[in-house]
Amino acid sequence: MTGNNDDPESIAGISWPAGFSGHVGSIGIKDDTADFSVIMADRPVTTIGMFTQSRFAGPSVVVSRDHVANHQAQAIVTISKNANVATGVDGDLNAREVVTAVGKLLDAAPEDVLIASTGVIGRQYPMDRIRDYFAQFHGTTLTADASPVGVARAIMTTDTHPKVATAHIAGSNARIVGVAKGVGMIEPDMATMLTYLVTDAAVDATELDQAFRTVVERSFNSLSVDTDTSTSDTAIVMASGASGAVDTAAFVDALMTVCVNLTEQLARDGEGAETLLTVTVTGARDPQQARLVSKTILNSPLVKTAVHGADPNWGRVAMAIGKCSQETDIDQDQVTISFGGVEVYPNSVGERQLVELEQYLQGNTVSIEVDLGLSASRPADPRELAGHEFLDPENLGNSWTVFGCDLTDGYVRINADYTT
Amino acid sequence: MTGNNDDPESIAGISWPAGFSGHVGSIGIKDDTADFSVIMADRPVTTIGMFTQSRFAGPSVVVSRDHVANHQAQAIVTISKNANVATGVDGDLNAREVVTAVGKLLDAAPEDVLIASTGVIGRQYPMDRIRDYFAQFHGTTLTADASPVGVARAIMTTDTHPKVATAHIAGSNARIVGVAKGVGMIEPDMATMLTYLVTDAAVDATELDQAFRTVVERSFNSLSVDTDTSTSDTAIVMASGASGAVDTAAFVDALMTVCVNLTEQLARDGEGAETLLTVTVTGARDPQQARLVSKTILNSPLVKTAVHGADPNWGRVAMAIGKCSQETDIDQDQVTISFGGVEVYPNSVGERQLVELEQYLQGNTVSIEVDLGLSASRPADPRELAGHEFLDPENLGNSWTVFGCDLTDGYVRINADYTT
Repeated sequence: MTGNNDDPESIAGISWPAGFSGHVGSIGIKDDTADFSVIMADRPVTTIGMFTQSRFAGPSVVVSRDHVANHQAQAIVTISKNANVATGVDGDLNAREVVTAVGKLLDAAPEDVLIASTGVIGRQYPMDRIRDYFAQFHGTTLTADASPVGVARAIMTTDTHPKVATAHIAGSNARIVGVAKGVGMIEPDMATMLTYLVTDAAVDATELDQAFRTVVERSFNSLSVDTDTSTSDTAIVMASGASGAVDTAAFVDALMTVCVNLTEQLARDGEGAETLLTVTVTGARDPQQARLVSKTILNSPLVKTAVHGADPNWGRVAMAIGKCSQETDIDQDQVTISFGGVEVYPNSVGERQLVELEQYLQGNTVSIEVDLGLSASRPADPRELAGHEFLDPENLGNSWTVFGCDLTDGYVRINADYTT
Repeated sequence: MTGNNDDPESIAGISWPAGFSGHVGSIGIKDDTADFSVIMADRPVTTIGMFTQSRFAGPSVVVSRDHVANHQAQAIVTISKNANVATGVDGDLNAREVVTAVGKLLDAAPEDVLIASTGVIGRQYPMDRIRDYFAQFHGTTLTADASPVGVARAIMTTDTHPKVATAHIAGSNARIVGVAKGVGMIEPDMATMLTYLVTDAAVDATELDQAFRTVVERSFNSLSVDTDTSTSDTAIVMASGASGAVDTAAFVDALMTVCVNLTEQLARDGEGAETLLTVTVTGARDPQQARLVSKTILNSPLVKTAVHGADPNWGRVAMAIGKCSQETDIDQDQVTISFGGVEVYPNSVGERQLVELEQYLQGNTVSIEVDLGLSASRPADPRELAGHEFLDPENLGNSWTVFGCDLTDGYVRINADYTT
């Protein structure tokens, strides 16, 4: 599956960091495309996992959450085209059987194998086919036959292209490589967000946990396509240590670079999306308020359709800010609203600037900026923050940037025409 | 403006309850259609108002909230096609000038005049035209020339038809008449929800306030078209007392009938809507949990597009329930999901039932029912509850019904193509 000619050149050549390899195959769940993949470390390594909070979480999430609790894992198995959600006791037993079988093939403890699934809800795994697949490796191990883009392609469901990103960690030979699929909060039966990050840097569990949580908050957790949350969202980071210790701030910087890059790729590939929409709120009372207001704007169907229509309709942004009615310190007389850096409220633009603004909104990347005027503004865009700024919450500023997309006829058609 | 041939026959003949009259005219804000209306009582009467919680509330809301604080009013002025929102000090002065002018024409105190506006945000009223309009009545009073459907038509913006409902109060000669416009939480520059209820029953302010709040919670506040909230939402009830005292439970019954009827009319006329979607949650821990879960299902774009696609995709309903992650007592093994009374989870339907279910979903009214299994189920649908059941919170049951619509290509087109 590697080296597929369809893969964007920019990501086709990305290799695994030292200590990791990949396997990809087809169980034939839906068709003969790749639907089974494993990311393998050559031994148990430091691992942190973050999972959906859904009350309908499936057995993959239950098993993985349990297995990663000790901050150690050796492999991540992904089955795509079947979410194994709402499948009862059988679904749980099946997830455990897959994990145990992969553990045997890798000579790893089953508790060091994590699993994620994505696809249709309410259907059992085709266990006969899965057993047949494993049987072909009897007495051997899973072939290390897949590059990151191969795995990124195997975990896809409704994604239109594989998503991979990489960054070097400054002052070291270590790298971080990440793959991702799905479109954030979306759950169109088939679009759970899964992301796996692997690095050959040596990072201890406490440090990795802190860094990952901070970065995920500002990247994947700041992504929203349609406010819907999957039953199976999973984000995992594994550190092999093969390339030795690294500077913590440099590590966070690289991790943020990879995660924000993947977040942007996911937002751009949102179902039906034609525009990457970012919303940055500055001057909030605190970061939580900035996040709430930015997400409320990003998730407003009326703002999303205005962006789709290339209409600099700041009244809808004002409406969305106004929706945060529990934030009683928000004062409409202190607020400024800008599109692409051009203020539209309270100062309005002239005819000529309006034409420029409409042209800007017709582009494939649109930024809306809001300052609430409740504190001095500080940088919000994680792309502009240095690693060390994330390590001290005091430095995060009263600001937040969120990533999403426009709402199009395409979204409605994809999700109305998709039939179970 | 009354007796318009386009008005549905069922509402064209509805007259005002004793003590009320209506006036409609055209200021010419956008074109020569009716954009100015007044509901007039023949003296100050008991009045309760409820308003948007938006942080971008306009001067109409500010003035009306202030004027109704003493539970008394004589008239409600509505200007449509201009929201008078985000218009600064001038907008505030203009709202007060309109209220004062109408007070003079009706020989009423300005503080007994309420005002609501709906339409484009960020533009000043055309005060010259408004003054010219008032000048024609110099030395006389506003003509009582409009029936309820006339006012209902004059307050419309993107609505496709006027909305009026009426009910008799059992055991009396009194009636309740309500008009409404807009589509709930929607705010497409032009679709604020406004609703005015008038009755000739004698109801004191405390009783009216309690009844109205209870009814609004289960009707207009249980309506959602697209999660967006207007800067100008206004609900007002006026009781003239002209037909004497009534039984409280009978009054609440009639008020609920009118408000739920208007709520259904609003949901059905949601932008682009083709299907009235109701979601009923029973067996919750408490009514608050039932409301949260039902609204989360109703607002899920994936559920709304599945309904549009006539797909009995219960996995999306399960996903939406799962999103309520703060509700840690929700247990997926206790949940049942039904469409139109036919259980689809955990028990699945056969092939024949599936065909029937798809036919059901192709209708113009779809109901989704969820039982959380956390308490004994009690009736949730306000259409099935008696007035006295609402008066005692203990009787409300751990259940809730919410009203909305499907998400269609039409919604996207209306809101993407609408240009400021």
